[in-house]
Amino acid sequence: MSINEELNDIGGKSLIASNQVKNLISEEKNNLLIKISEKINLDKNLILEANKKDISIASGSIDKAMLDRLMLSSDRVDSIVKSIEEIIHLDDPINKVLNENKRPNGMVVERVSVPLGVIGIIYESRPNVTIDASVLCLKAGNSVILRGGKESYYSNLQLVNTARDALQEAGYDKNIIQFIETTDRSAVDYMLSEMSQYIDVIIPRGGKGLVKKVQDKAKIPVIGHLDGICHVYVDEYADKEKAEQLVNNSKLRRTGICGAAETLLVHKNCIESHLPNIINLLKNGGCEIRGDETIMKNFPDLEKANEKDWKTEYLDSIISIKVVGSINEAIEHIDKYGSNHTESIVTEDISNAELFLNHVNSAIVMHNTSTQFADGGEFGLGAEIGIATGKLHARGPVGLEGLTTYKYKVRGNGQIRP
Amino acid sequence: MSINEELNDIGGKSLIASNQVKNLISEEKNNLLIKISEKINLDKNLILEANKKDISIASGSIDKAMLDRLMLSSDRVDSIVKSIEEIIHLDDPINKVLNENKRPNGMVVERVSVPLGVIGIIYESRPNVTIDASVLCLKAGNSVILRGGKESYYSNLQLVNTARDALQEAGYDKNIIQFIETTDRSAVDYMLSEMSQYIDVIIPRGGKGLVKKVQDKAKIPVIGHLDGICHVYVDEYADKEKAEQLVNNSKLRRTGICGAAETLLVHKNCIESHLPNIINLLKNGGCEIRGDETIMKNFPDLEKANEKDWKTEYLDSIISIKVVGSINEAIEHIDKYGSNHTESIVTEDISNAELFLNHVNSAIVMHNTSTQFADGGEFGLGAEIGIATGKLHARGPVGLEGLTTYKYKVRGNGQIRP
Repeated sequence: MSINEELNDIGGKSLIASNQVKNLISEEKNNLLIKISEKINLDKNLILEANKKDISIASGSIDKAMLDRLMLSSDRVDSIVKSIEEIIHLDDPINKVLNENKRPNGMVVERVSVPLGVIGIIYESRPNVTIDASVLCLKAGNSVILRGGKESYYSNLQLVNTARDALQEAGYDKNIIQFIETTDRSAVDYMLSEMSQYIDVIIPRGGKGLVKKVQDKAKIPVIGHLDGICHVYVDEYADKEKAEQLVNNSKLRRTGICGAAETLLVHKNCIESHLPNIINLLKNGGCEIRGDETIMKNFPDLEKANEKDWKTEYLDSIISIKVVGSINEAIEHIDKYGSNHTESIVTEDISNAELFLNHVNSAIVMHNTSTQFADGGEFGLGAEIGIATGKLHARGPVGLEGLTTYKYKVRGNGQIRP
Repeated sequence: MSINEELNDIGGKSLIASNQVKNLISEEKNNLLIKISEKINLDKNLILEANKKDISIASGSIDKAMLDRLMLSSDRVDSIVKSIEEIIHLDDPINKVLNENKRPNGMVVERVSVPLGVIGIIYESRPNVTIDASVLCLKAGNSVILRGGKESYYSNLQLVNTARDALQEAGYDKNIIQFIETTDRSAVDYMLSEMSQYIDVIIPRGGKGLVKKVQDKAKIPVIGHLDGICHVYVDEYADKEKAEQLVNNSKLRRTGICGAAETLLVHKNCIESHLPNIINLLKNGGCEIRGDETIMKNFPDLEKANEKDWKTEYLDSIISIKVVGSINEAIEHIDKYGSNHTESIVTEDISNAELFLNHVNSAIVMHNTSTQFADGGEFGLGAEIGIATGKLHARGPVGLEGLTTYKYKVRGNGQIRP
């Protein structure tokens, strides 16, 4: 089979499997998740061996951070199992009556949640995504087609085979979960541009390069986000201590996640009152600080920010700081340079807070909390497949509900339309 | 200005206007709709004159049906005004708290409905769409960029100017509603492929040629549907009289709408019991009938259906009929040939009805009602901007809610993430 034929074959099988998994009741789906977690425990040694193979192949050519993301240990396999158990306990998002409308003619119009169908996941080097994404898709009644990074190839393949074995042993279609085995890069292009008759939505999980490629080439809807250029705005009515703690946590708790703050906007009245402590705290945390002209006048030992800084997601211990003359100027800056991900205002003034929450167009807008809370688990969604910054279908942390759609069920007893 | 510059100018103005209209409260929006309806009444003669100009230009070159769609009369202008009044009475879809989650750390996570932003409408020769679409977008807090068909150019331009005058006289940004004045076809291409930084969603309103072009070229999400190949399945447990009435109404009430049935699937056990009356009724209504082989054996005077018939949206007094051996065969046929629009089962057997409602993947699935009910008004949504057959964001009749999205508002008092 050519790569395209292989992919069409996978697509066709996924469609068939989606028609099985879409109608499973909660107990059946949860039972399958239990079987998968049990099988992962049984296959732990196989999984760790496959991972060792990946590590030994990759260790010369990738950096330490990537190697760490790639690495599985007995504990990490246990945490994969634990995350399945958490998903088992989430509410089933399918077959919920979202709306019911009894019409004057007696016809009952119900809007009911249903699975999306087939979900394509394209991800990089973290093997845990293989199982996390698969079980979230399954719990929401979807079949999944996985395409993982080449660095984690053997780990992914083993994890997928373990999960598929579990499905098959339980008497279900193993093609509910499929993995694109070829490592040929053209497979991704074909998946993105030629498989819209099979795949309903593509979810990229990985760095900006991957997401941009997916967004540019996909002829299938994409749920995800490119940048997380998150802002904290310290308003003129900000509490000093809250401002210090929130800026520090938003920036430095973890610098490599999409919800980390990249730019601090500060009201001009706070330069002398709030900024010195904020800057000290950041410096003590090892953060490089790049300021605009006003900042440089007041804190001449900092670095100078240029236009590019306002557009940059550092994902590192670097922050840019700009002074604004008003809350509206802060909102305008976010409108111009932001990525519609997460922005937070620090203020004790409720009307300024509401102004910010209403006018900033981002998927997540916050008042007096850290941008690092931008996460499905922290929002009470249970688990997330990613964070979306688009405007359609799903925004912010995308949990099980984002993996569903709805249909209208209309029940009558012979009504014809006059 | 070149066409591209003109369009970028329109896009930029629409973004600015969207930031005004998104935060209007219900009373303000309804007041604007009242002003628009009053202004249409005042400008009625101007509107009718502009329409006469369109009619006189078009009358040689377009067919009678199209000329009828293009034509405005005093009554038709009144019905445009009436439809605005109906939209005024609908619930405001914006700023609804869809979900609230108080977290253990005291943080309150709210999911709130917000407008989509800027909506592009591309439509053909019906001038009433100009106002219908504009007021629906406005009521949902969006600005709109309209691109109408060239046949209704002067009517559209006058209607838009009337509406924009009303906005301006009320002291609001007239660019909440904009119209692309150039009739150059390249404007549509540019709008679809180069304006994603301005336009959040494109809604095509018109024939299949238009919708296909929009779907193929758009780099912006499209809400709409290409085909309405709707099926009625007469189950072996169908009530005879219901089957007759429902098939007849689904096919012949109006043949030119997307919810009209195109294919009738009949259980083999109903050939002698149900089909003769159904066929007679259709024939008496002037319907051409094309049957599969089994049908031809039993009713040799009908036309023979071929493979192409199962894929055709006739939008005319023609129906194709196929005999199936089981309800599952009916579902498989719909899966293969349907367009995910609307399908109805006629049966007195509840478990067969539920099987059909659960397994058919269409946006609208029905039991014992006519497919011609596939309409926002009939569903109790009040008004619709169109019917969507995609799986993301909005499906079935798309009303005001389909013109919204949501964002997360998170309120805290200094919470940092551990």
